[in-house]
Amino acid sequence: MDLIAELPKGNRRALARAITLVESTRAQDRDAASELMAQLPHDRQALRIGLSGTPGVGKSTFIESFGLHLTAQGLRVAVLAVDPSSARSGGSILGDKTRMEQLSRDPNAFIRPSPSQTQLGGVARRTREVVRLCEAAGFDVVLIETVGVGQSETMVADISDVFALLMAPAGGDELQGVKRGIMEIADLVIVNKADGDLKAAATRTCADYAGALRLLRKRSGDPVGFPKASMVSALTAHGLDEVWADIKALRDFRQQSGFWQTRRQDQDQRWFDQELHFGLLELLHSDPKSARIVEEAREAIHQGTRTPVRAAAQILASFRKT
Amino acid sequence: MDLIAELPKGNRRALARAITLVESTRAQDRDAASELMAQLPHDRQALRIGLSGTPGVGKSTFIESFGLHLTAQGLRVAVLAVDPSSARSGGSILGDKTRMEQLSRDPNAFIRPSPSQTQLGGVARRTREVVRLCEAAGFDVVLIETVGVGQSETMVADISDVFALLMAPAGGDELQGVKRGIMEIADLVIVNKADGDLKAAATRTCADYAGALRLLRKRSGDPVGFPKASMVSALTAHGLDEVWADIKALRDFRQQSGFWQTRRQDQDQRWFDQELHFGLLELLHSDPKSARIVEEAREAIHQGTRTPVRAAAQILASFRKT
Repeated sequence: MDLIAELPKGNRRALARAITLVESTRAQDRDAASELMAQLPHDRQALRIGLSGTPGVGKSTFIESFGLHLTAQGLRVAVLAVDPSSARSGGSILGDKTRMEQLSRDPNAFIRPSPSQTQLGGVARRTREVVRLCEAAGFDVVLIETVGVGQSETMVADISDVFALLMAPAGGDELQGVKRGIMEIADLVIVNKADGDLKAAATRTCADYAGALRLLRKRSGDPVGFPKASMVSALTAHGLDEVWADIKALRDFRQQSGFWQTRRQDQDQRWFDQELHFGLLELLHSDPKSARIVEEAREAIHQGTRTPVRAAAQILASFRKT
Repeated sequence: MDLIAELPKGNRRALARAITLVESTRAQDRDAASELMAQLPHDRQALRIGLSGTPGVGKSTFIESFGLHLTAQGLRVAVLAVDPSSARSGGSILGDKTRMEQLSRDPNAFIRPSPSQTQLGGVARRTREVVRLCEAAGFDVVLIETVGVGQSETMVADISDVFALLMAPAGGDELQGVKRGIMEIADLVIVNKADGDLKAAATRTCADYAGALRLLRKRSGDPVGFPKASMVSALTAHGLDEVWADIKALRDFRQQSGFWQTRRQDQDQRWFDQELHFGLLELLHSDPKSARIVEEAREAIHQGTRTPVRAAAQILASFRKT
């Protein structure tokens, strides 16, 4: 299949194949992937929405509901998962797509599980490329979801145009274990399950987050009222239109102010920095002798018999000679 | 002067010279510094206290007061400044030591301004080494201060055993622009200026921070009551004994639980990672051809004419050949 010809037509099978190519670690595939990435058209941009939420907040239900809300308007939606822990668990957080049964059957939707962590910084690197592939395939919205393990939220935020945090109604007076630092990058805090018995709790939780967001420093590049807390019921689809209106308002404001373009350019520079960083480490580790010395150095540092500076200097000196 | 012989005697002139050596960027000095670092005795540990606070919170007054409080007990105190912006401002945040007039004349104190940012990741790398030098010179406490620009707080926290955030009394109901993510790493939030007209405001602010800290997730490795908010008057020295008691309580608890040693070992591994990271980038940039290509690549990425992945791959391929 001629991927470069088929992708712009929105061929989902071509997209799936292109992603598999990009995620492959075989040297020959890597070259083909690099070639493909270089040939992608650059005239298409999707709205990239990052979404984080811990297990139990109803993330799958929300994505299914929100995705269907968008495809019903004729928009084409891609859903990508980022799970840096998937190497350990051996599986993907999207599982077999049964999590989003209706959306996965929608011809205007494309769902792709998280790749395994097979190389240094792999998930972030590959996800950036997959986002580009989805844009080339003409998707209007790319939703990038993460469970928020470790640095994954920061990583997803750095790939997204808009970052949303999905929460569940809380019981008491505590802001449920939001990792500190996450509120800083959230554009939207969305309280889910605002239905039935939980509606009152959701209203209270939403007010709590609205208060917490007000305490935080105003960011440049944001319209009045953002970052914003709102509530939805993914079950009844109530509030989804408001979330979508908020996201569009944010997009329009940022595009007009130039913040949008600057942010994407900055993201590209960081992407480049990371490619260089991991690429250099790969060069180092691809030399078996260097790789062995690195492991020995780690052990010596752990034992306290070698200083980190000394250990690194020795490795770099030996690397330079090869 | 035989630095390796003089340092363990606590010779302050030897310490100053050793630091100058370590901060030097001359290749010959770098080798001598590396040699010196490798020969340092490893049997001495200081209590490393990180301290952050924005301009205006009375950081210099606090350090002077707190430093004198410690030297009065016979402890030897080193004060280091970390200011990642000092390359731009051209000066150091510690200026000419007039900021801490009494402490700088104290024979049991040693004050060292922030080095200029002359190389990649330079300030963090050199500060880690300077901390080790101070330990070798028999200092009991190393106080590492930062103004909290950019990533400097995270960096200082990663060098410290205990991290404290100094705040001023706030006027209203807002938690004054604490960078989000910083509360996460603070062991102590210290509200300064709890004296005179500001005492009531300081009491209220301290209660606010105590409340905010309670909202945050409990960390493992901490005794009951930590992270903790307290208040002091650097001017009258009121509350300094409590801050010191808190720090010692934290130290004792963590040393007994093993958290202390684990944290230092983890810090050493990250130090090693960073040395490798920056060392590899230096290797790349030390080749004039590679350095020029990197700059061209940045520009092309900015213009959107080259993708970050492609640009990085080209550079790595050319680097491998040299």
